Amino acid sequence: MAATNAAYSVRIRVEVENEPGSLGRLATAIGTAGGNITALDIVEASGARIIQDVSVDARDDVHADEVAAAVHALDGISVRSVRDRTFLLHDGGKIEVRSRIPLKDRADLSMAYTPGVARICNAIAEEPDEVHKLTIKKNSVAIVTDGTAVLGLGDIGPEASLPVMEGKALLFKEFAGIDAFPICLRVDRSDDPDGARGADQLVEAVERLSPVFGGVNLEDIAAPRCFEVEERLQASLDIPIFHDDQHGTAVVVLAALRNSLKIVGKEMADLKVVIAGVGAAGVAIAKILLQAGVQNVIGIDRKGAVYQSRSDLNASKRWFAEHTNPEHRTGALHEVMPGADVFVGVSGPGLLLRDDLRVMHKDPIVFALANPDPEILPEAAMGMATVIATGRSDYPNQINNVLCFPGIFRGALDAGATCITEGMKLAAADAIASAVSDDELSASYIVPSVFNKRVVELVASGVAAAAAGEGVLRSPGTPTS
Amino acid sequence: MAATNAAYSVRIRVEVENEPGSLGRLATAIGTAGGNITALDIVEASGARIIQDVSVDARDDVHADEVAAAVHALDGISVRSVRDRTFLLHDGGKIEVRSRIPLKDRADLSMAYTPGVARICNAIAEEPDEVHKLTIKKNSVAIVTDGTAVLGLGDIGPEASLPVMEGKALLFKEFAGIDAFPICLRVDRSDDPDGARGADQLVEAVERLSPVFGGVNLEDIAAPRCFEVEERLQASLDIPIFHDDQHGTAVVVLAALRNSLKIVGKEMADLKVVIAGVGAAGVAIAKILLQAGVQNVIGIDRKGAVYQSRSDLNASKRWFAEHTNPEHRTGALHEVMPGADVFVGVSGPGLLLRDDLRVMHKDPIVFALANPDPEILPEAAMGMATVIATGRSDYPNQINNVLCFPGIFRGALDAGATCITEGMKLAAADAIASAVSDDELSASYIVPSVFNKRVVELVASGVAAAAAGEGVLRSPGTPTS
Repeated sequence: MAATNAAYSVRIRVEVENEPGSLGRLATAIGTAGGNITALDIVEASGARIIQDVSVDARDDVHADEVAAAVHALDGISVRSVRDRTFLLHDGGKIEVRSRIPLKDRADLSMAYTPGVARICNAIAEEPDEVHKLTIKKNSVAIVTDGTAVLGLGDIGPEASLPVMEGKALLFKEFAGIDAFPICLRVDRSDDPDGARGADQLVEAVERLSPVFGGVNLEDIAAPRCFEVEERLQASLDIPIFHDDQHGTAVVVLAALRNSLKIVGKEMADLKVVIAGVGAAGVAIAKILLQAGVQNVIGIDRKGAVYQSRSDLNASKRWFAEHTNPEHRTGALHEVMPGADVFVGVSGPGLLLRDDLRVMHKDPIVFALANPDPEILPEAAMGMATVIATGRSDYPNQINNVLCFPGIFRGALDAGATCITEGMKLAAADAIASAVSDDELSASYIVPSVFNKRVVELVASGVAAAAAGEGVLRSPGTPTS
Repeated sequence: MAATNAAYSVRIRVEVENEPGSLGRLATAIGTAGGNITALDIVEASGARIIQDVSVDARDDVHADEVAAAVHALDGISVRSVRDRTFLLHDGGKIEVRSRIPLKDRADLSMAYTPGVARICNAIAEEPDEVHKLTIKKNSVAIVTDGTAVLGLGDIGPEASLPVMEGKALLFKEFAGIDAFPICLRVDRSDDPDGARGADQLVEAVERLSPVFGGVNLEDIAAPRCFEVEERLQASLDIPIFHDDQHGTAVVVLAALRNSLKIVGKEMADLKVVIAGVGAAGVAIAKILLQAGVQNVIGIDRKGAVYQSRSDLNASKRWFAEHTNPEHRTGALHEVMPGADVFVGVSGPGLLLRDDLRVMHKDPIVFALANPDPEILPEAAMGMATVIATGRSDYPNQINNVLCFPGIFRGALDAGATCITEGMKLAAADAIASAVSDDELSASYIVPSVFNKRVVELVASGVAAAAAGEGVLRSPGTPTS
């Protein structure tokens, strides 16, 4: 049975008699129904009755209804309302746009707006690079999507993707102080070779609105469109472009792998790595692992191993085939697993069996990243895999992009970088890995906690140094920050 | 000589001896140079020396340098730095994007981001109108420009326009709690009839990013492009589109005129109104005055009176000619002024002469709105015009769009309006006029102060009621707020 989760929590507002035992009966009823009480707040207490809000985590929608029904059934306790806490939290959106400066009198207004603002406009008109200093562009990132591959939900469109992009914006602010804004674009969502080209529309729209932003984080855009969009935007714009689903995942995987290798005592060059799922994330993971020195990567898609002479490969899988699988292996997952040191899953639930672990090389490393249901559950892999990581917060070793994207953009913006290079990504991975000290490092602690605030600083400074080292700064030698 | 203004203020950091008289000599030197000290802050005081920041308003850039030079020349006072306060204020931009919700632990994260956010995405995918409740779209406005007509600066492009749009965003938030974001679009800035069409590109870009926004405020877009852009966007999108330079100005002019008529005891239907400047603002002012019952409007452009048989009129001026000038007057400004009751200038400095006022009808009303230098200075019109208004904050009766746009969008968003109708604009004008009570009303107080917080509430409720009355609500009968 799944655990309760705040994602399925309700706020039950009840009116109870103000006498000993009332709360006990309420709490017992909720507990018996399997609900997990996380907060109790008194709304109003007057005389013989108390109104209070009980926050309860449930397992899912149906279970939340069952918990509420159990409270409804109690005598002497009347239910005023049952509200879904996740929906309450989203009412009116999760982010806001605020002033950074005081605006209390005419003097403030005449500096921030007319006539003073005209002097700033003129300064930028005369020296265009000043826009990176005197406006929000110094610290802003567009979170761009077309809604074609949102979470595990698929092609749900730009409006329905907006809550995810707002969530991302608040992560940018909370973790890195970056002002990110959701840009959910209405474009053709399938690329019709004879007609409308959603990728063209997406690229054009981002180019048009690029004056306002210091960086672009591409998000939840389906493959293969995402590859083309990223490449074209980086070619046409002088600000960093970063497709988080590809590179954020790849960076954190590399960080986790670096630390895992310390535990099992292996070297990158000696590894055989099987990657299940050759979409956006899988291709990016392969690329960064090759950069990091891995020489034997084998990719698996729905039709089995990816190899050069396969005739059904799109452009990105063709690239993948040309750069991986040096032994020209073919066949299904269970045919390529024997002797593998590392399994990285970015595919779907339950793909990996205990039998597959049995045939792996000594001290198997398993990153089962399909979300919410991994390729193999940690409890199933336990005892066979030496290191196990997932994308979930309720198991150890969560491979979470939030370890990467805030710091990588913080570093790029601080340095005044015009792009995000492979070297900057490698530096980010090193920084994340370094946030786990040798003392802390263990099979169940290979990556830092997402709430470890030091990670963003380490990543940002590593990335900024790499950008400077590679000379990809807007004004080499004089960062804009 | 112009007055000092915070727009040209400097922060002079000085080190002075900590003894009686030091500050006096400093203040005297600044005062003698014509600088206006607005603040004194001690940065550091240790032993015999004090470091302090002196904020000084100057008349312009050159004068600011003169003030600083006067301080430099003082013995016993050393200048550590001289910083332009307007540039300091703009460092890194004036707005930020922040979280509206707490994000302190995994429970918060699992509601705001995965897995909880997927439930919100699904709710919107199933019922698209939910995006107006569960996301920032409930309260967001895009401030859209192409940078073709920025303030009085002209076609300076999207980057250089950004400080103005940020300023507008902070006004939206401060006055109406609206989350506005600058969208400065890189499009072709001239409309080449044979090739690139900037207007098409602008319309397309706004349509693409419309999923995120509950309204669109068009800003500083040159005429005639602005007319087409507004019309096409309102036709294709179901959110309010409002070109502030046109309609914001027009609404406040109407409000000011309503109150002026109470002072001079005239009726709309009896007025002869001369409008100098037949660009975006002039056309919109004519439209709203006709709506409000004015029957005799005469427009003047660089070639004189606008009349039907003139052969050099573009589409919007043709509309203007067809709906105004019932007496078919021709000739220059001084030829149409005799007998006019009202002059509205949205043109350029110094256009109106005292001789023009002399020939006006009894109790002339003069709105000289060219900024920063009006068509006639109030001191020149004094004694001849009964009511004088300008666009400037340093004279009485400032005709400022900030009296209109925050409230009109607040009302439209609260009501769930799909557009902004003529009726909603008239309601906004009535509400602004009503914020000046009969007791307060005088020739030097015809519009409320921009800092009067009651204005936005009055405008919002009037506009929301008008929207409901006209039935332009997204879900008639059930506003989304």
